[in-house]
Amino acid sequence: MKKDPLILVTNDDGITAPGIKNLLKVVKRITKNAVVVAPDSPQSGMGHAITMNATLRLNPQELDGVEAYSCSGTPVDCVKIATARVCKRNPDLIVSGINHGSNSSINVIYSGTMSAAVEGAIEGIPSIGFSLCNSSIDADFSPTLDYVEKIIRFALEGNVKANDCWNVNFPAVEKEFINGIKVCRQANAMWEEDFEERKDPSGNSYYWLSGRFVNHEEDKEDTDEWALKHNYVSLVPVQFDVTDHSAIKGLKGIED
Amino acid sequence: MKKDPLILVTNDDGITAPGIKNLLKVVKRITKNAVVVAPDSPQSGMGHAITMNATLRLNPQELDGVEAYSCSGTPVDCVKIATARVCKRNPDLIVSGINHGSNSSINVIYSGTMSAAVEGAIEGIPSIGFSLCNSSIDADFSPTLDYVEKIIRFALEGNVKANDCWNVNFPAVEKEFINGIKVCRQANAMWEEDFEERKDPSGNSYYWLSGRFVNHEEDKEDTDEWALKHNYVSLVPVQFDVTDHSAIKGLKGIED
Repeated sequence: MKKDPLILVTNDDGITAPGIKNLLKVVKRITKNAVVVAPDSPQSGMGHAITMNATLRLNPQELDGVEAYSCSGTPVDCVKIATARVCKRNPDLIVSGINHGSNSSINVIYSGTMSAAVEGAIEGIPSIGFSLCNSSIDADFSPTLDYVEKIIRFALEGNVKANDCWNVNFPAVEKEFINGIKVCRQANAMWEEDFEERKDPSGNSYYWLSGRFVNHEEDKEDTDEWALKHNYVSLVPVQFDVTDHSAIKGLKGIED
Repeated sequence: MKKDPLILVTNDDGITAPGIKNLLKVVKRITKNAVVVAPDSPQSGMGHAITMNATLRLNPQELDGVEAYSCSGTPVDCVKIATARVCKRNPDLIVSGINHGSNSSINVIYSGTMSAAVEGAIEGIPSIGFSLCNSSIDADFSPTLDYVEKIIRFALEGNVKANDCWNVNFPAVEKEFINGIKVCRQANAMWEEDFEERKDPSGNSYYWLSGRFVNHEEDKEDTDEWALKHNYVSLVPVQFDVTDHSAIKGLKGIED
């Protein structure tokens, strides 16, 4: 492993979240060259949103002794402005998280944490998103830290290429119950939405999103959901070509 | 084709955009059962963002004689609330657009138009996003309309399954120059960001996102970018399993 690689740290829960402080704790074990660019407010569920029609602010500060900037934008904005304006050269790795809450299976699509990592990969910087299946503000991240370190070191020891991205999720259990790391695929799952309707003081309706997670592949042992349910750390390699290659041939009839 | 299929119409440019009115014009040629749920304000670049920590409003109105609702949320919110709260049954098809501006290649990831369509597919409703490579508010959509109709009819004639999603882009040329429809894959392209720095009246910096589109596959004839450059309508089948399946085996070393 290169000595003191440049690691960019971001998240979607905001720069004050305990999750990013825990991630930074691990990053500091690995390198003296870390920089943090993270949202100035919670950005959960922002997906791959970018700020196109408004301006961005970047406020220098320090986070646990590390050069840091809070950014007024989305997680993807943070990665874009960090690579374009903050980092003197392309980082060797981008790490995002540790997210308060699961980003397994279909959640990868809605997740700001994972979208920041995917953005890194699009820009040719290997990236890893870390998430703990506990969305509480006082979630206990300590069982995850040695695993986070192991995975970052494994990546930096020549096991990632420029456009690689990994989605790592941790079961919310004590360390002695974790069965190890399992490389998986994204489970075919979804949220069945409901919207709770309420009335404002003027009698007009407004809605709160709620929903029920539905896993269509409960018994599939090669999925991230199965791994997490069985107390494994799940690692899913993620890519940003969303073409359904298998469907191309069958659609050629439309060309006539 | 089923008589008067239920078609949900949405977009990301907002319910007042000319693009959605043009799409609705075509949908009305095909069915008497259309419903519109679209953002009440422009939502370009919102990706797959959802509204998790705020409330949503849904305002009934009419759009060109069709039942319509403007929604205070993102394009994905619109699809979620439409299927959960507005539509009496699952739509037979969701159409999104016609977007003012390209959503080809990597733009599919940032696009609210396409994320709305992908959300439909996640929910098991076949969905198509349409975009014109002209982001002007007064773009001429008329050359696209017969193609939009052909593609929607092709879909409804039994050529889409529950989780299918298509990303359709139109070159910004007059109809006689369009060479037909080409089924493609997403080109490997990206935005090279720049951020223009300005000073506010207090002397503090703020930034505007700008960027340069870089296509890594200029000469690949099977890509959407190639098709559009050569005046074809590009159709890319899109899926929401972002697992890099080819990478799984090579990563097994981390499990030890």
